[in-house]
Amino acid sequence: MRYIDIEAIEKIALGAAVLGTGGGGDPYIGKLMAKEAIRKYGDVALLSLEDLRDDQLVVPVSGMGAPTVTIEKVPSEIEVTAPLEKLEEVLGRKVDVVMPIEIGGINSLFPIIAAAKKSLPILDADAMGRAFPEAQMVTFHLDGLEPSPVTMADEKGNSVVLYPRDGVWSERLARVITIEMGGSASVCDYSLLGKEVKNSVIPNTLTLAEKIGGYLLDNKGKEQQGIKKMLEELNGYQLFEAKIVDIERRLIGGFTRGSANFEGIRHEQGRTFTIYFQNEHLVAKEGEHLLCSTPDLIAVLDAETGFPITTERMKYGARVVAVAFPCHEKWRTQKGIETAGPRYFGYDFNYQPVEELQKERK
Amino acid sequence: MRYIDIEAIEKIALGAAVLGTGGGGDPYIGKLMAKEAIRKYGDVALLSLEDLRDDQLVVPVSGMGAPTVTIEKVPSEIEVTAPLEKLEEVLGRKVDVVMPIEIGGINSLFPIIAAAKKSLPILDADAMGRAFPEAQMVTFHLDGLEPSPVTMADEKGNSVVLYPRDGVWSERLARVITIEMGGSASVCDYSLLGKEVKNSVIPNTLTLAEKIGGYLLDNKGKEQQGIKKMLEELNGYQLFEAKIVDIERRLIGGFTRGSANFEGIRHEQGRTFTIYFQNEHLVAKEGEHLLCSTPDLIAVLDAETGFPITTERMKYGARVVAVAFPCHEKWRTQKGIETAGPRYFGYDFNYQPVEELQKERK
Repeated sequence: MRYIDIEAIEKIALGAAVLGTGGGGDPYIGKLMAKEAIRKYGDVALLSLEDLRDDQLVVPVSGMGAPTVTIEKVPSEIEVTAPLEKLEEVLGRKVDVVMPIEIGGINSLFPIIAAAKKSLPILDADAMGRAFPEAQMVTFHLDGLEPSPVTMADEKGNSVVLYPRDGVWSERLARVITIEMGGSASVCDYSLLGKEVKNSVIPNTLTLAEKIGGYLLDNKGKEQQGIKKMLEELNGYQLFEAKIVDIERRLIGGFTRGSANFEGIRHEQGRTFTIYFQNEHLVAKEGEHLLCSTPDLIAVLDAETGFPITTERMKYGARVVAVAFPCHEKWRTQKGIETAGPRYFGYDFNYQPVEELQKERK
Repeated sequence: MRYIDIEAIEKIALGAAVLGTGGGGDPYIGKLMAKEAIRKYGDVALLSLEDLRDDQLVVPVSGMGAPTVTIEKVPSEIEVTAPLEKLEEVLGRKVDVVMPIEIGGINSLFPIIAAAKKSLPILDADAMGRAFPEAQMVTFHLDGLEPSPVTMADEKGNSVVLYPRDGVWSERLARVITIEMGGSASVCDYSLLGKEVKNSVIPNTLTLAEKIGGYLLDNKGKEQQGIKKMLEELNGYQLFEAKIVDIERRLIGGFTRGSANFEGIRHEQGRTFTIYFQNEHLVAKEGEHLLCSTPDLIAVLDAETGFPITTERMKYGARVVAVAFPCHEKWRTQKGIETAGPRYFGYDFNYQPVEELQKERK
C-alpha cells in the first residue's frame, strides 16, 4: 500500500492544477489545508482500484462553487468532513473509502483532507479524469449511476441532504444551495459500492497528478523540459506561447465565466488566440480557427516555471504556454459529448478530438 | 371529535383567504384539491389543542413559493404528501398529527389534503394566526424552537432535507430550493412534540376560518352584513371603500412584491389609499398617513360579495372594502415585531397597533 505524505501533496497539487484545466478550485488553498491535515492526522493510504473490494462504500468528497469565492472564503476542516458524517447518518453505515470526484485543483486535495481526518484510505481514481464545472459531468452519470443522496454542508453549521431525481437535478439543486451558503460548500454525491465504482471511474489519476507535478517540480528552471515530459506522458500538444492581453471574468449563476485574449510571443509573434472558460477552460481558438475544445483538456502554464495558472489567477501581461491533452475515451462517447461537449456549453460547433485538430493544423 | 367535510372546506377556504391577508397561496386551487381529497379519502378529524397528547408528533405541511406560480403550476397530491413521508423516513417514526403552519390561503388547505390522504387528524391551530411571507415568521421561531429537519419535495420526484442552523437559514435555503424547483414546493418544517406545540401555537384558527367563511357565505347578497359580523368576530376595522386604480406586481426572489393604489368611492370619494405587499399585504396608507401595518392583518374584500381578493387577483377597476384586524399578542412582543414588523420588511417606521392608529384617525 502506498501512502500520500506531505511531499506527495506538493506534487499532486501541481499536477492536479494541470489536469484541472484552469478550474477545480484554487490548489494553493487546498495544498495548505491538505499538508496541515497530514501533519495532524498522518499520511493517507492510497488504495488502487485492484485493491478495492466490491462491498466497500466509496464516497466522493468535493468542494462546490466558483473558484473566485474559495480564494476569499477558505473552507474549514469541519466543512470538509461534515457532509461525510451526514451521509453516514443518512445511510446508517460507515464510509470505507474516500475518493476525489474530479482530479482538478482543490478537489483532488479536499478528499485527502477528509481521508486524513477520518483515517480512511483514498481511492487512486476519479470520475472525470480532469475538472469540469457541473456536478453531472462525471463518468457515474455517463454510466447511469444515481447521485442520490447528496449531502452538503457549510462552515456556519447548515447541512442539506438532496434526493434529486437525476444528475442534472442534483447539479441544479446543489448549485443554488452552494450560492446561498455563500458561494462555496462541501459535497458528497454518488456514494457507491466498490463494484459500481470499479467499472465507472478513471483509474490512477492521483498517481498521474503526482507524476506530472513531479516533472514540473524536478525541472524547475528548465521549464521547457518539464512541459515536454508532461506532454509526452499525457499525449499532449503545445497550442501556443503568448502574452495575456485582455481578460474578462464574471461571477454568474455560481460560476466564474469569461474569456482571455492572447498575443503570440517568440516564434508565434503576430498571432492572436482566445480561451473561453466556465470555471474550467472550455475552448481555445486562433482567430476563428478552433484549436481544442471540451471535453479535451486545455491548460495554461506560466512560461517561466511551467506551473499551471487557474482561470482565477490569469493576469494581464503574463507570459504563458497553452497546452492541450486528449480526454478519457468515456468523454468521447455520444453521451460523453452530449454531457460535456461544446454544444452543452452553448458553442455552435461539433466536438473534434484535439488530435484531429492538431493534424489539420500541421 | 369534529370532522372537516366538503362543506367545511368551502367555508375554511373563504375564511382563510381573509386571514391570509392577500397571500398564503391562491385558496381556489387549494379548495378544489381539498374537496377532491375528502371525496376520495373521507372527512378529516379536527383535533383541538386540549385533545393533543404531549408525546404526539405534530408536523406542519405547507406549500412554499410565490402565489403567482401556484396559479399556473397546480401542485399534485403526491407533492403534498412527499415531504411528510420523507420526514417519517428521516425521523424513523410515524407522524401522529398534521397542522397548518399558517392559516392563510392555500396553506390552511394543504395540510387538510395531507391529513385526508394519510388518514391523520389535523390540529385546530396554526403558527401565525394569519399568513406571512417568510418561513421563520412563526410562533415556533418566537419561542426558540428549531425548524430542523426541514423536508421538501416537488412534482418532478426531487426531494430535499435541510438541517438549517436556525429559522432564518431555513427560510434562505428552502427559498432557493423552491425557486429552483420551479417556484413552488411543499414543505414540512418545525416537526415538534405535542407538549412543545401546545405552548406555542395560536389555537382554534381552523375553526375561526370556518366561522368567518360561514359569515360571508351565509350573508351572500347582503355583503355589508357578512363583513360587519366578521369585523365583530375579529375586533376589526373598515379601513376604506375604494376602487383599484393602479397595481404593480413583480416576481422577485421567489416572492410576489408590489403595491396597489386606490381611489375612495361612496362616502370616501376624493381620498386616495395605497397598500404595499410581499405575497401578503404589509402596509396600508392614506396618502402618507399610516392606517395599518404588519404584523396586524390587512384584507381586501370584494365590495359586491364581501369575499377576499388575494394580491394576485387584484385587478384594475375592482371595487373593494379594505379591512384590518389586530394580530395575535405574540406578534406584538419585541421578538414578534423584530421578526415580522414593518422595519423587517424595509419600512422606515415603528409598528403601531391598528387599534391606536384607528383611535388617532377618529
